[in-house]
Amino acid sequence: MKIVGIGGSLRPNSTSYQALEIAIERVKLLGVEVEILDLRKMNLPFCHGGEDYGDYPDVEKLWESVKAADGLILATPEYHGGVSGVLKNALDLMSFEHLAGKVTGVISVLGGQVNSNALNELRLIMRWVHGWVIPEQIAIGQSWKAFDPSGKIIDAKLSERFDKFAQSLVENTRKIRGIS
Amino acid sequence: MKIVGIGGSLRPNSTSYQALEIAIERVKLLGVEVEILDLRKMNLPFCHGGEDYGDYPDVEKLWESVKAADGLILATPEYHGGVSGVLKNALDLMSFEHLAGKVTGVISVLGGQVNSNALNELRLIMRWVHGWVIPEQIAIGQSWKAFDPSGKIIDAKLSERFDKFAQSLVENTRKIRGIS
Amino acid sequence: MKIVGIGGSLRPNSTSYQALEIAIERVKLLGVEVEILDLRKMNLPFCHGGEDYGDYPDVEKLWESVKAADGLILATPEYHGGVSGVLKNALDLMSFEHLAGKVTGVISVLGGQVNSNALNELRLIMRWVHGWVIPEQIAIGQSWKAFDPSGKIIDAKLSERFDKFAQSLVENTRKIRGIS
Amino acid sequence: MKIVGIGGSLRPNSTSYQALEIAIERVKLLGVEVEILDLRKMNLPFCHGGEDYGDYPDVEKLWESVKAADGLILATPEYHGGVSGVLKNALDLMSFEHLAGKVTGVISVLGGQVNSNALNELRLIMRWVHGWVIPEQIAIGQSWKAFDPSGKIIDAKLSERFDKFAQSLVENTRKIRGIS
Repeated sequence: MKIVGIGGSLRPNSTSYQALEIAIERVKLLGVEVEILDLRKMNLPFCHGGEDYGDYPDVEKLWESVKAADGLILATPEYHGGVSGVLKNALDLMSFEHLAGKVTGVISVLGGQVNSNALNELRLIMRWVHGWVIPEQIAIGQSWKAFDPSGKIIDAKLSERFDKFAQSLVENTRKIRGIS
Repeated sequence: MKIVGIGGSLRPNSTSYQALEIAIERVKLLGVEVEILDLRKMNLPFCHGGEDYGDYPDVEKLWESVKAADGLILATPEYHGGVSGVLKNALDLMSFEHLAGKVTGVISVLGGQVNSNALNELRLIMRWVHGWVIPEQIAIGQSWKAFDPSGKIIDAKLSERFDKFAQSLVENTRKIRGIS
Repeated sequence: MKIVGIGGSLRPNSTSYQALEIAIERVKLLGVEVEILDLRKMNLPFCHGGEDYGDYPDVEKLWESVKAADGLILATPEYHGGVSGVLKNALDLMSFEHLAGKVTGVISVLGGQVNSNALNELRLIMRWVHGWVIPEQIAIGQSWKAFDPSGKIIDAKLSERFDKFAQSLVENTRKIRGIS
Repeated sequence: MKIVGIGGSLRPNSTSYQALEIAIERVKLLGVEVEILDLRKMNLPFCHGGEDYGDYPDVEKLWESVKAADGLILATPEYHGGVSGVLKNALDLMSFEHLAGKVTGVISVLGGQVNSNALNELRLIMRWVHGWVIPEQIAIGQSWKAFDPSGKIIDAKLSERFDKFAQSLVENTRKIRGIS
């Protein structure tokens, strides 16, 4: 069983990646193989609607990693009340063969008051490609005060939500994918 | 009064741009100044969440054109049941100062059965940046058979919808923006 | 010019109606004729999908009042992350002839953390019937602590939002409906 | 294992119930206990936001049946681009104790061109109450020509979708609920 995380921000000190790392870390503590695809370190093109991305070896890397995954964690900053174009573009580069049947947990991070628009979008997008999204989801508002300088979550209740999120993702990926 | 159109596809023979051109043409026939920002010919970066895009003069071009507009037409291919990452990224590059108060018409184009997910997303995104979206909207399903080789719409009823769309956009931009 | 308010709760001490009354009061202060349709005092049936509701004179009342309105305020409790069935049913009882072209402001109220799901739904529903929804919208979270015993809003910023909401609704109803 | 179906229409010849009956029938053929809660034959009140519905024994019946279910099928007419108030009200009458953890399949039926707005709403509502919604979903457009006089689906492809829908619902309810 393998869980792959993708973040939708290109910011150096991205709180989306901080949230993603915490979620992935907790999944790992449950004994599951994990991998983060850091879009800040990958060279992905804009999706042109075709299938040939030969000039971009990182597209192949994206495809391989997601194809090999049983579950996904998608973490996006909420830009203008929606999924970031960066994350949506990465999803656009993939197709049913990579995404269908994957069990996914979704996280959004925003500077203002918490909201679930981007999470709703991700839920409908993953459904479209015949994936599953777990009911547990995490929206972090006022993200600039959510983490301490070492990257830990300050609020204990929020930290607990990450535990439940990770547990549900692992447990339900196991069930839905039939992994014993 | 000026209406600016943006398409969310990078495909050379994009049906989104075909639809956008038809809509913009009809707006122009109503005596309004129009401009299409063709993302296929612009060199835009992925949004990094900051404000400095000095290396990309086309970001400045995008900002200037949209700032100067009274109304917008956004045309997107529906990828995975959502707005294309290409279009969302272009919107992410902009902010309230460019988008707020603009009166917008939205169009989506998809290969399969018609659907309004991407249009719903665009409506909520434009609301988020305090823009207006006209009630008339156009979703074109099975887009590969919607246009003839010269780019004209084959279905007469669909063509009529473009007329009503253009009329509503012009009339309501005039009203909401107080242009006499 | 006339603005009609409808609330989606049947609770005796409904905070949705408290919010609605405040919004309607501020619209009234701008010199506009207002009316609240209090669903708690009306005897409306469940929508059966037909057009004959002869046994329910309040359906006729609903139709007349909304038909005569230029603008609407819809205030709903958010139940299960959506518009209340009570409000949706009242909308289902109406049709294009009552709702199309109306300029609408939407408000949601919930006990937990603020969220915009119900507002998003109302925006898409009003679009469906060819209505307009103003960009300003109000979501009140933790509603049990939002009002003082006399029904006033405690938070000054939230109170300001109601002012802007009322101003935008009146100003834009005037513009879109062409009322001088 | 038990699957309960609820339809959101009160129309005597409701196509939503026709669709629901077909789906439930196919689930039954897979050896699963089924029950349809026919809202046309139940006397449910509007949700008043409280918990005491002592005067309405059918509320108790609704609660018991849904509580005892492992999975649900929700079929709604799409009214004004949304879930019917009738169905939403039935859901509002229930709570986490009835709905959480249930595995759900969603169906919508509308007279016009197919659309997934009501399905999207149902997906987000069921998520809100911590339920699961299977990726397979069915939207039937132009429903007046979808069924023959005996209630059978005319289009073979649509009929196949019902098979896959029923199979996925049964298989995944088994997996997620841990039923051997």
